[in-house]
Amino acid sequence: MGSKGIKPEYFFVDVDGVLTDGKFYYTKEGKVMKVFGPNDHDALVALKKYLNIQMVTADQRGFAISKKRVIHDMKFPLHLIPNGQRMTWLKKNFNLKKTIYMADGIFDGEFFEQVAYSIAPANAFYLTKNKADFVTKASGGDSAVAEACLHILKKFFKPWPGK
Amino acid sequence: MGSKGIKPEYFFVDVDGVLTDGKFYYTKEGKVMKVFGPNDHDALVALKKYLNIQMVTADQRGFAISKKRVIHDMKFPLHLIPNGQRMTWLKKNFNLKKTIYMADGIFDGEFFEQVAYSIAPANAFYLTKNKADFVTKASGGDSAVAEACLHILKKFFKPWPGK
Amino acid sequence: MGSKGIKPEYFFVDVDGVLTDGKFYYTKEGKVMKVFGPNDHDALVALKKYLNIQMVTADQRGFAISKKRVIHDMKFPLHLIPNGQRMTWLKKNFNLKKTIYMADGIFDGEFFEQVAYSIAPANAFYLTKNKADFVTKASGGDSAVAEACLHILKKFFKPWPGK
Amino acid sequence: MGSKGIKPEYFFVDVDGVLTDGKFYYTKEGKVMKVFGPNDHDALVALKKYLNIQMVTADQRGFAISKKRVIHDMKFPLHLIPNGQRMTWLKKNFNLKKTIYMADGIFDGEFFEQVAYSIAPANAFYLTKNKADFVTKASGGDSAVAEACLHILKKFFKPWPGK
Repeated sequence: MGSKGIKPEYFFVDVDGVLTDGKFYYTKEGKVMKVFGPNDHDALVALKKYLNIQMVTADQRGFAISKKRVIHDMKFPLHLIPNGQRMTWLKKNFNLKKTIYMADGIFDGEFFEQVAYSIAPANAFYLTKNKADFVTKASGGDSAVAEACLHILKKFFKPWPGK
Repeated sequence: MGSKGIKPEYFFVDVDGVLTDGKFYYTKEGKVMKVFGPNDHDALVALKKYLNIQMVTADQRGFAISKKRVIHDMKFPLHLIPNGQRMTWLKKNFNLKKTIYMADGIFDGEFFEQVAYSIAPANAFYLTKNKADFVTKASGGDSAVAEACLHILKKFFKPWPGK
Repeated sequence: MGSKGIKPEYFFVDVDGVLTDGKFYYTKEGKVMKVFGPNDHDALVALKKYLNIQMVTADQRGFAISKKRVIHDMKFPLHLIPNGQRMTWLKKNFNLKKTIYMADGIFDGEFFEQVAYSIAPANAFYLTKNKADFVTKASGGDSAVAEACLHILKKFFKPWPGK
Repeated sequence: MGSKGIKPEYFFVDVDGVLTDGKFYYTKEGKVMKVFGPNDHDALVALKKYLNIQMVTADQRGFAISKKRVIHDMKFPLHLIPNGQRMTWLKKNFNLKKTIYMADGIFDGEFFEQVAYSIAPANAFYLTKNKADFVTKASGGDSAVAEACLHILKKFFKPWPGK
């Protein structure tokens, strides 16, 4: 879907591979670590005046780590929705026609067709990148969300101060 | 060996460097961590309807970590076979002429000549990549197995839904 | 600001993303690890004869880690100054016209206009790199500070021995 | 120094940045982890028939980790020699004219001029790479030593089997 005449209200950010580098750091105890990155928090705070920002993850095993970073430290809402139920859940609770959606996974290309505007980070699965309205130069966990925020501000709201 | 007329039955995936990034994360206690990645599990589940999927590793020191991820969390069979015995073991127990084999190591190029179809991830040793039937654009632990699964589906079975 | 006729006295180095790779390594306990790199310490020791070297960070959560590396192991002064107060603090305590400043963050481009000479590592936010007087080929936590030190020595003082 | 007529007897391998990725993984307790990589051990075992292989490090803080990997798991000799004493120590104990030396650091370029043949990994400091007789395409901790071993076998001894 193009962006003509859209007045977005929501920005949904997938956690793993977008806010993180998407890797699974395993010890023999299981998934123990996630890698987040710089600038994303600062840029999301600037964007918060314009959009309702929500984070979403399907990662049950790493949820305690995501919760610590996203809810406790970044202070953003985080939803744990199983794979295969995300789009149904989004449709039921939010207006997809007013939603900007940023994700990287193998099945996210299908979701991109149903939202107002779609963004993929540089590290997204190659088929998913082909379907995104915008692909950041930066990778997940390496300022991809910050770059997306500046792009959204410029495209839908107003330029970044000083540009 | 080319792929003409092959009807593959098995997909053997090397763990270290293919399902992981191949790095050895050491503390003074020894090897403590492995790094797996996104999309591989989802794509393997989709491929499971067509092929018997088996994982193989020679890494004794990191086996508890591999076991946790592959057997416990991903629910795929995992075999610990010492280096130098892998090909003999494969030949004895499986039909190599019906086997797709994905690996990255310095000696895997020799194995590639004996299987029906060979795949190397982008990070494979350079001599090994030269001998592979297909080299993924993605690296191990960064969706290389997912990319291989989609390639296998398209080449030997049917296109990925929606392509 | 250009570098003509400058006689710099201070070199301020941002810690996260410059001396480190800028990533946030999280377990469910929070930020647990930072990744520093080679050559930076050796090059800073060589530069110390010419400039007063100071490190600065806004990272409260990871301060114990930064302190261990910078103060305890590298023996350089480290200041914990909240985001938004850095420039005021710098102005109050140091002469910005005699300061070389190296940083990578989304807001550092604005600071670059107020110092004598600005340096960004290769991994800096793209808008920040556009405003830097010099961008290193190396990334933070991968010898970016070492490269900056050699550049400073050559530009403002004397060539690296043996060049 | 060129390689004409050299009959090398020793292969000295720097640990950090050559056998590892050179990064310093810090918690608030200090340096806790090092990252080694695939293929290096296998290739060194193949080269051992032709050369006396020795590992050297200046890293006191991470020595327990290096010792675990190099001495305990890889079974190669490892020497802890402080920075600034390495060349003196090498000269006193070994014949530099018969030594192949692989290293990545900011000062290693000077050492390269005194040995029979010098090798740098792709991640070496840029001035150091300029002085090396051979630069591997692979980075430290990512098969750089394996690539160096095959290069040495081909250049000074005999081609890799099957080439």
